[in-house]
Amino acid sequence: MFFEPEKGDHGLPKNPFNSLIIPRPIGWISSLDKDGKVNLAPYSFFNAVSYRPPTLMFSVGAGAVSDDKIKDTRRNVEETGEFVHNIVTWDNREAMNATSESFPADVDELAAAGLTPLPSKLVKPPRVAQSPVQLECKYLSSYTVPHVAPENKYVVIFGEVVGIHIDDAFITGDGLIDVAKLKPLGRLGYQDYATVTGETQFTMERPDL
Amino acid sequence: MFFEPEKGDHGLPKNPFNSLIIPRPIGWISSLDKDGKVNLAPYSFFNAVSYRPPTLMFSVGAGAVSDDKIKDTRRNVEETGEFVHNIVTWDNREAMNATSESFPADVDELAAAGLTPLPSKLVKPPRVAQSPVQLECKYLSSYTVPHVAPENKYVVIFGEVVGIHIDDAFITGDGLIDVAKLKPLGRLGYQDYATVTGETQFTMERPDL
Repeated sequence: MFFEPEKGDHGLPKNPFNSLIIPRPIGWISSLDKDGKVNLAPYSFFNAVSYRPPTLMFSVGAGAVSDDKIKDTRRNVEETGEFVHNIVTWDNREAMNATSESFPADVDELAAAGLTPLPSKLVKPPRVAQSPVQLECKYLSSYTVPHVAPENKYVVIFGEVVGIHIDDAFITGDGLIDVAKLKPLGRLGYQDYATVTGETQFTMERPDL
Repeated sequence: MFFEPEKGDHGLPKNPFNSLIIPRPIGWISSLDKDGKVNLAPYSFFNAVSYRPPTLMFSVGAGAVSDDKIKDTRRNVEETGEFVHNIVTWDNREAMNATSESFPADVDELAAAGLTPLPSKLVKPPRVAQSPVQLECKYLSSYTVPHVAPENKYVVIFGEVVGIHIDDAFITGDGLIDVAKLKPLGRLGYQDYATVTGETQFTMERPDL
């Protein structure tokens, strides 16, 4: 089949677009508002964009709760300049999903999901104790995706990773990240997810390395 | 363990950063230079950033081949304004890996990897016949990642998806994308990958939907 998204003519019961760019890593972003209230929410339009310095991005759509349609995560990061990404794994999947609800700004999703905050070393927002990898980040800039109607506006947030916590239990004897043990989650389309397991992993050597 | 990337003090045999944001979807980007020569290369700093209109991004580091360190994909997209993303799956994994080699600009990686070009409908760069999903894209803009040394410069390319091809064999009777059959590949760290299989998929209903 072929369709043009602008014409909305896919003819399927659900828009297939978010099932076509998969599996997506999940940014689970903790932040603080200017009064110090905690926010935690997942974003699957998320990825690294640079190795040196390590830099990542996540895209935030319009919010459903506040009058200005700005999601708490975006407001907090732009106002305070800091956030933490906490890795989503098989073990914390239910808590991650609980934090996807559109709560009012004064709800601490981290506490509401039964998670434990840990102090960060270089930024103020807390880390999630139940995530075995946490990346402390400094906000760099926001980029408004062009050609998007104001009511659907997406803003891409860029941040530099200034501090990295890795639970030693997930580092192999060879000093590599033990992905099979970590079981990171990938986002698929609809309300689906996949987990990376040892059985689904394989290696392909780059031809020029 | 905790380390600060700026100090390079991770103490591991390999930088763990690209093993921490996983699994990453793989953008397999076909483009044409201004003389019509084909380029095809994979990028795992790749994701969607907006649903309406469907918009995607991929980040391109410095190239190893040309004197100006600009990779062919970036040069082509910025000069011609068009590209195609071809989905990477278990079945075309070896061909994808073959196209990751840093070839000189005049090499047609699509042909060199034994792949078959198909004409696109709305843009000039060809699609890869061996990819069951192809997204025809119009270039929107480039964003230079801040704080990066010139020799390591990363540029994030944004594109709007104007045409979507999906092989009907990968749509279920319910009109959903058949991910278990598609077996898309996710990029892990080092030289590792994972594939999404039916056994690793699961559903979690969003609490507020």
